Amino acid sequence: MNKLIDDLWSKERHLISDAYDESLEYISKLIPLKIHEIPSGTKCWTWVVPEKWAVKEAYIEDMNGKRLLDLKDHPLHVVSYSLPINKVVTKEELMKHLYTNPKRPGAIPFEFKFYEKGWGFCIQHDKLKKFTEKKYKVFIDSKFEKGTLKVGDCTIKGETDETVVLVAHLDHPAMVNDDLTGVAVLVDIAKELSKRKNHYTYKLLLVPETIGSIAYLSQNEDVIPKLKYGIFLEMLGNNNIHALQLTRQSDTKLDRMARYVMKRKLENFREGAFRKVVGNDEMVFNGPGVNIPMISISRSPYPEYHTSDDTPDIISEKNLVESRNLTLELLDIIDNDYTPMRTFKGPIFLSGYGLWVDWRINKQLNANIEQIMLRLEGDKSVFDIADELDMEFNDVLSYVNKFLDKKLIDVKS
Amino acid sequence: MNKLIDDLWSKERHLISDAYDESLEYISKLIPLKIHEIPSGTKCWTWVVPEKWAVKEAYIEDMNGKRLLDLKDHPLHVVSYSLPINKVVTKEELMKHLYTNPKRPGAIPFEFKFYEKGWGFCIQHDKLKKFTEKKYKVFIDSKFEKGTLKVGDCTIKGETDETVVLVAHLDHPAMVNDDLTGVAVLVDIAKELSKRKNHYTYKLLLVPETIGSIAYLSQNEDVIPKLKYGIFLEMLGNNNIHALQLTRQSDTKLDRMARYVMKRKLENFREGAFRKVVGNDEMVFNGPGVNIPMISISRSPYPEYHTSDDTPDIISEKNLVESRNLTLELLDIIDNDYTPMRTFKGPIFLSGYGLWVDWRINKQLNANIEQIMLRLEGDKSVFDIADELDMEFNDVLSYVNKFLDKKLIDVKS
Amino acid sequence: MNKLIDDLWSKERHLISDAYDESLEYISKLIPLKIHEIPSGTKCWTWVVPEKWAVKEAYIEDMNGKRLLDLKDHPLHVVSYSLPINKVVTKEELMKHLYTNPKRPGAIPFEFKFYEKGWGFCIQHDKLKKFTEKKYKVFIDSKFEKGTLKVGDCTIKGETDETVVLVAHLDHPAMVNDDLTGVAVLVDIAKELSKRKNHYTYKLLLVPETIGSIAYLSQNEDVIPKLKYGIFLEMLGNNNIHALQLTRQSDTKLDRMARYVMKRKLENFREGAFRKVVGNDEMVFNGPGVNIPMISISRSPYPEYHTSDDTPDIISEKNLVESRNLTLELLDIIDNDYTPMRTFKGPIFLSGYGLWVDWRINKQLNANIEQIMLRLEGDKSVFDIADELDMEFNDVLSYVNKFLDKKLIDVKS
Repeated sequence: MNKLIDDLWSKERHLISDAYDESLEYISKLIPLKIHEIPSGTKCWTWVVPEKWAVKEAYIEDMNGKRLLDLKDHPLHVVSYSLPINKVVTKEELMKHLYTNPKRPGAIPFEFKFYEKGWGFCIQHDKLKKFTEKKYKVFIDSKFEKGTLKVGDCTIKGETDETVVLVAHLDHPAMVNDDLTGVAVLVDIAKELSKRKNHYTYKLLLVPETIGSIAYLSQNEDVIPKLKYGIFLEMLGNNNIHALQLTRQSDTKLDRMARYVMKRKLENFREGAFRKVVGNDEMVFNGPGVNIPMISISRSPYPEYHTSDDTPDIISEKNLVESRNLTLELLDIIDNDYTPMRTFKGPIFLSGYGLWVDWRINKQLNANIEQIMLRLEGDKSVFDIADELDMEFNDVLSYVNKFLDKKLIDVKS
Repeated sequence: MNKLIDDLWSKERHLISDAYDESLEYISKLIPLKIHEIPSGTKCWTWVVPEKWAVKEAYIEDMNGKRLLDLKDHPLHVVSYSLPINKVVTKEELMKHLYTNPKRPGAIPFEFKFYEKGWGFCIQHDKLKKFTEKKYKVFIDSKFEKGTLKVGDCTIKGETDETVVLVAHLDHPAMVNDDLTGVAVLVDIAKELSKRKNHYTYKLLLVPETIGSIAYLSQNEDVIPKLKYGIFLEMLGNNNIHALQLTRQSDTKLDRMARYVMKRKLENFREGAFRKVVGNDEMVFNGPGVNIPMISISRSPYPEYHTSDDTPDIISEKNLVESRNLTLELLDIIDNDYTPMRTFKGPIFLSGYGLWVDWRINKQLNANIEQIMLRLEGDKSVFDIADELDMEFNDVLSYVNKFLDKKLIDVKS
Repeated sequence: MNKLIDDLWSKERHLISDAYDESLEYISKLIPLKIHEIPSGTKCWTWVVPEKWAVKEAYIEDMNGKRLLDLKDHPLHVVSYSLPINKVVTKEELMKHLYTNPKRPGAIPFEFKFYEKGWGFCIQHDKLKKFTEKKYKVFIDSKFEKGTLKVGDCTIKGETDETVVLVAHLDHPAMVNDDLTGVAVLVDIAKELSKRKNHYTYKLLLVPETIGSIAYLSQNEDVIPKLKYGIFLEMLGNNNIHALQLTRQSDTKLDRMARYVMKRKLENFREGAFRKVVGNDEMVFNGPGVNIPMISISRSPYPEYHTSDDTPDIISEKNLVESRNLTLELLDIIDNDYTPMRTFKGPIFLSGYGLWVDWRINKQLNANIEQIMLRLEGDKSVFDIADELDMEFNDVLSYVNKFLDKKLIDVKS
């Protein structure tokens, strides 16, 4: 996954931009991607797709021509989607347009003005003291033009049209953990899922944040009823424990499955309510009028967030692998879970059906035979049983599958 | 409100009596009152309207003609609805018919025998020691006759027939806090509501306790389906914190609204279950076969309850004003509340619709924009949202009204 | 009840055996019993009825003919349903077929091999040290043959076909507390119920454990829909507090009634979840595809369980009487409970209907008149009311019956 990150991280992936398009092109060589294109100006529910934006040159000079800031030094120096400007301003005026992060004085913050029109520069807080003159020349040569918002869509067909959607956002110029790490994990998961025979259909989406999901769903409303669960992936490379953000519903089976996997597979993790851990496209997928249960898996928070310090230095392949495996474990459970419905009456004659489990073979399963037998009433899935009895999903699954083989249960649809 | 109390308090307002009728007549000059008249003997569900009662003269004398008790000294000296009597009794016999309040030895208690037939006197506990003779003459010149139970009804029409009913009881001879204070507050509220354009219809009822509500409702059963909520008002002048008695249902929106208002507007208050704080006509309105959610607002308990010490001295206009304002705040919320139902999909493009709220203008509203946006699904009212987010009802109302103006929501009926 | 136990306890009541049949015959002289007969080999849901089993002679000898164990000394010395054997085995081989209870070294444990085929002996743990030779002769002259599983059924017809079933198991050779005590209590209850006019039908069943219930129900499936509640009785003679094992549903009215009776009638008792206190035929009656709520009443645990120490010495008539009375109290409540539905409106004019209760006659009832009056809405039974108000069932019943006499309530069916 580090390769993808190394290749793409320094690109200026603004919402609608050449660098964003190039990045999507790059990924389409790793996994099959259908690209959904929605032109600038398209009405998307209550929103409108913005224009494409680019900036060629930008700087701040004092009246002697000494440059105090130059876009060439770092792509975050100009506010994303800033208006062009070319004038002399007072120091007082300039300060209203200079963004810094006092908590991280050596880093350039990431700022954007996608929908409010305005201009601005971002600079290290430490450098503010160099602005000692009364007047400055500010220059931004940015360009707005009709463009095309692009959503990358890797759909892996399963036995059913019911779909689990995984989302990561590909925009955010020159940053890594937010959210190229989510993108890298998503790409790896896509590769893995393509190799398998899946029950559900999986749709893995790469979007510019928020507007990408709005644009895609509003132009493809027929997809919504097929979506069963959603998972948003971001900030997966930094050194922090995993954070599970619950769905808006907060108590769906997806929430319980994610909690179950994290409890069993991780030494430690934290859990928070919808929109209390991170804020991304779950507000679209799990929001008004759509409302697909969507969790977020991240390692939020991290101190380099939305600054020029969000570089490959703060992430590790080891963390990405752990997050990928965790997500795949969750998808395994989602994909294999089913609801058994008893066809027998009375307690089963276990030894007669070869369903006796010796405690020397599996002590926990032996102790729970009766409890499993009592939960085949069609109101609990295999996962529900494993969760209630605090057992390994796969142990319960393989035992219940024996009942299926002996026609003692049906799969309840 | 003190004027009404001063003018009416000393009147002998027995259940059905001239003084009760005069008091109702007095109030009908302050607010428009329809008088419902139900004659003695009318069968009202399992009850029967009692007769009118009056007492002209009553006393206890020793055999030397020395008066130990005389009705002329205080109207509470005779048990309300006492049978007439004129005979010589032993001290032992007399003591069975003398009522005192040992906890308040200097006060005459209030006693009544509306439905059990009997006779009796009420006297200061301190005076019992004066009864040293063996025999006494007891004389009560009381009269029972066919009369008319009267219920005063001030109905203020709103946009809808759905009705909020407020009740206070006008009977109880020569007492103030129980319940002329409830009457005074109710009259003031009636005046205030008449000036407003209301969504709901308001019905303010003045009754003789319990039998008045039974008589009115049993003779006007068609009113019952229109009643949405009820509020009983009494004991509002004394110096005690407010007590909220919940409805029989205990968890209606009315209960939650009353708790919300008390929490926000009062320094302190207490809350109790149905029939555990006070006992009045809520047992009729919120009782079997009627079951309109009715809270009681009072300042219960107070030590002068049901004695001759319940005089204007123990109440204050300041307390009445506070209780009236509190009740009006509650009615404001009831009247203005509605359930918004989203017409949009996805998160709203806030700045595009002028729905952004700067944190410098309203910090709490700014922080809750998203939470409000997520609660417009038609299953929560404006009050529900304010209550859940611990916000001012009016702040939420005016913000949600903006969505209504922009047709982003409908009012769910 | 001691008489029955004295007469039957030493019999070798194996699952299907002559002694079992003789015991059933004995009981059929005490109470009317219909005997359900199900032949060996009958398919019963997922089970098959086993064969009849008997053992004539059995011993272990050393090579010098010295007997180290002889069936003549105690009927538990041979594993129930052991295969016949007659051979010389090494000490090592023998030890695999010798069962002891190290926690109770002076007692012979009870072991059985109903469905796994095998042979074995049971012996006092203390005697193991006598096996010092290298080889032994083992001899078991047991016989398997076609037989008939028998279920004793004492059905006492009530006003309705809805049936409460009580079950105890009659098998287990030469043991007392498990479960001749349950049998004795059940027989006594049958006698008592036959004397009464009952609302429900009562069915008292004597079975060989588990397979008896499976055989009976699988061959009489039409009975199942009529069963309302079940009670399993066992281990009622030893000196321990009562244990209430809840139904599989855990929160039925039967669970609440049993808890209510135990709380009120016993100084102390304990409560446990389904299958967490004892394990018997509730797994059939309350199990998959049958699911009649069945509690178990026992005095579990006791140290002599499943050993030769489970003799008449460890039980007392006093304990049996207490358990019987407790069960009869529970049946009283089940039988007399009904759901009242108000026909009146408003609070009732109590004194007018003779429904006033003076506090000097019944203080608790006086205090709860209003609370009872508020609970006649057809959603609570007399038991529910008594339970909620923490009152004696019979006090509430007789008071509510007065409402019925005065046609103020109907019985809700």
